[in-house]
Amino acid sequence: MTFNENKNRIFSDYEEIINRKNSISDFNNGIFLRYNNPVLTSGHIPPFWKYDFCEETNPYLMERLGVNAVFNAGAIYFNDKYCLIARVEGNDRKSFFAIAESDSPTEGFRFRNHPIILPDTCPEETNVYDMRLTLHEDGYIYGVFCSESKDINSRNLSDACASAGIVRTKDLDNWERLPNLITKSSQQRNVTLHPEFVDGKYAFYTRPQDGFIFAGDGGGICFGVCSDITNPVIENEVLLSERRYHTITEEKNGEGATVIKTEKGYIHIAHGVRNTAAGLRYVIYLYVTDLNCNTKIIAQPGGYLLAPIGEERVGDVSNVVFTNGAIEKDGNVYIYYASSDTRVHVASTTTERLLDYAFNTPKDAMRSADCVRQRNLLITKNLKLLTLED
Amino acid sequence: MTFNENKNRIFSDYEEIINRKNSISDFNNGIFLRYNNPVLTSGHIPPFWKYDFCEETNPYLMERLGVNAVFNAGAIYFNDKYCLIARVEGNDRKSFFAIAESDSPTEGFRFRNHPIILPDTCPEETNVYDMRLTLHEDGYIYGVFCSESKDINSRNLSDACASAGIVRTKDLDNWERLPNLITKSSQQRNVTLHPEFVDGKYAFYTRPQDGFIFAGDGGGICFGVCSDITNPVIENEVLLSERRYHTITEEKNGEGATVIKTEKGYIHIAHGVRNTAAGLRYVIYLYVTDLNCNTKIIAQPGGYLLAPIGEERVGDVSNVVFTNGAIEKDGNVYIYYASSDTRVHVASTTTERLLDYAFNTPKDAMRSADCVRQRNLLITKNLKLLTLED
Repeated sequence: MTFNENKNRIFSDYEEIINRKNSISDFNNGIFLRYNNPVLTSGHIPPFWKYDFCEETNPYLMERLGVNAVFNAGAIYFNDKYCLIARVEGNDRKSFFAIAESDSPTEGFRFRNHPIILPDTCPEETNVYDMRLTLHEDGYIYGVFCSESKDINSRNLSDACASAGIVRTKDLDNWERLPNLITKSSQQRNVTLHPEFVDGKYAFYTRPQDGFIFAGDGGGICFGVCSDITNPVIENEVLLSERRYHTITEEKNGEGATVIKTEKGYIHIAHGVRNTAAGLRYVIYLYVTDLNCNTKIIAQPGGYLLAPIGEERVGDVSNVVFTNGAIEKDGNVYIYYASSDTRVHVASTTTERLLDYAFNTPKDAMRSADCVRQRNLLITKNLKLLTLED
Repeated sequence: MTFNENKNRIFSDYEEIINRKNSISDFNNGIFLRYNNPVLTSGHIPPFWKYDFCEETNPYLMERLGVNAVFNAGAIYFNDKYCLIARVEGNDRKSFFAIAESDSPTEGFRFRNHPIILPDTCPEETNVYDMRLTLHEDGYIYGVFCSESKDINSRNLSDACASAGIVRTKDLDNWERLPNLITKSSQQRNVTLHPEFVDGKYAFYTRPQDGFIFAGDGGGICFGVCSDITNPVIENEVLLSERRYHTITEEKNGEGATVIKTEKGYIHIAHGVRNTAAGLRYVIYLYVTDLNCNTKIIAQPGGYLLAPIGEERVGDVSNVVFTNGAIEKDGNVYIYYASSDTRVHVASTTTERLLDYAFNTPKDAMRSADCVRQRNLLITKNLKLLTLED
């Protein structure tokens, strides 16, 4: 194959991926729909981000800067487009942010020509990832992300420190960087900004933790406020959605997508983690908080909303689903979730269905014996309805 | 789709799974056969265990109590049926027991209308799983299972305590609960009841362990007796099948199916665990004990009998195969094994083949150099037989 034939093949393969139509999968639980194709993969990366297309300097037409994975995407509907700000990971393991847009919520996402250039204000910052986008009532779109640095107080080469980085924009093109969030916890991850002022202050969902990987004594997802977003300090974090023994949040949990405001409450789409003999298993769960009291949970169904199935189970970090972005538009909800730290999928539903799920799914009964009682109530009701023998 | 159309689709999808014919797979090692379909999956759960089929209370026809997985099944032939008592795990992570029956050993398993209701005698018990069924010569069918509670002596939210719960029945419908087994070890898992009295006492295979996940100093599968099954205390555990360095039991091991009595000895189908960079790897192995001395191993082939292949490798806890139930009928043996904590498969063989495997497979040579010598003996013998050049 000549250089030009190869180049043409690379671009036509790429266009085929971008233009691939998506379709609803056979998965059926009444709560949300899954789709047959992921919406973003490493195949969605423009070829000119990876190859040097100059025949003189790259006669073999090799990838000069490979891209390993595209996952954990923040999401927002902006300028009549569904916009995803994905975590793009190079073959060198470093992540950065890039915007992919589409007219459709479920297919056709194409990256802009360049990744986002964040103001480089922290020389010690090694890696950035998992941006949550919030259109705040102050008029800015905020991006809150994980800013990671080497833990200089540890002799262990791998020990890291995570904190919440904050940027803001009005056009998704020009980004202003604010100082990292300061809280009383030594580390923070999965921090998300609430879209409205609370008592005139900026409000955050946080996840204090003792170490980089394990949450330690950290009790779960918290809520806290700060008065000045340009000098963001949270004095007090109040526990909101807690870790609980032998549930899907036993090991840790964290806020996911920016909350969706509905007439019945704020919908939170979060993640829960438990440990297994094959590593940590991440699932997605949902809870609802009171419109008038941000620290009051008014619905929290038992168990998970979404867990990995099929090809979602396998990837760079297998057995993980994670969301940091969802878009609500005209009552439809698109949850963008990554699987196994490798690719981004979409699940579609409606606010009505999510609220029905939230308020009518039984709570976690916490013990096998009580779970059987709970299930037998449902079975007995159904057997009567279906006129089957009990 | 209307409510009724959706309901009909849910039930027809379910019936299709239940009525799916199974077929022998291409896998071929002469020791056992594998089948193309698992015998139990979460798709085998009756829809009326998950959905609320009342249109008024569930207009979107959503799952109200999802089922995450169906795995580790005890097994018994009872009332002319192959009966599996599966570990069913809800989306809330709690497990419980349910009976699925079939006229065939390899297909057509259908759950009874309700899960098993175990007497709820331990208020601290959070989770139950992995029941072994033993038809004892005292006339009862015993179920020995893992009873798990939070470790109240630990500050770590995840720390748990495992002990052996015991129930008995004569009809698989009504279950009497006996006290949990007491041994000198702080924790017990994978405890299995021997089907016969030994010197007039009830005999158990145990697996003492220091912690919940890791076996610690525990040496392996042990044997112990107790005089009164209604007050089950084992004073002395004797090491039977031990953990050994750089074998398939290096990290831990545990008894699996209830022993199968043959004219040459008791066949034990157990599991061995080693650690890897991707977590613990579970395989199934076999050993045989003396009919006249329960603590004497008379055959223990090197290596594993069965390890995960293909789709068995992937699931909630990848890279795990596990058995806690097998059925021997007219010389045929059906080993029900779960893969990756997600589904149940069957492997079929005969007692004759298993005994041939047990007594004629070389022992573990324990060192690479000795393993090569062992293999070269086989190769040289074959080259002569096959009249190939040595």
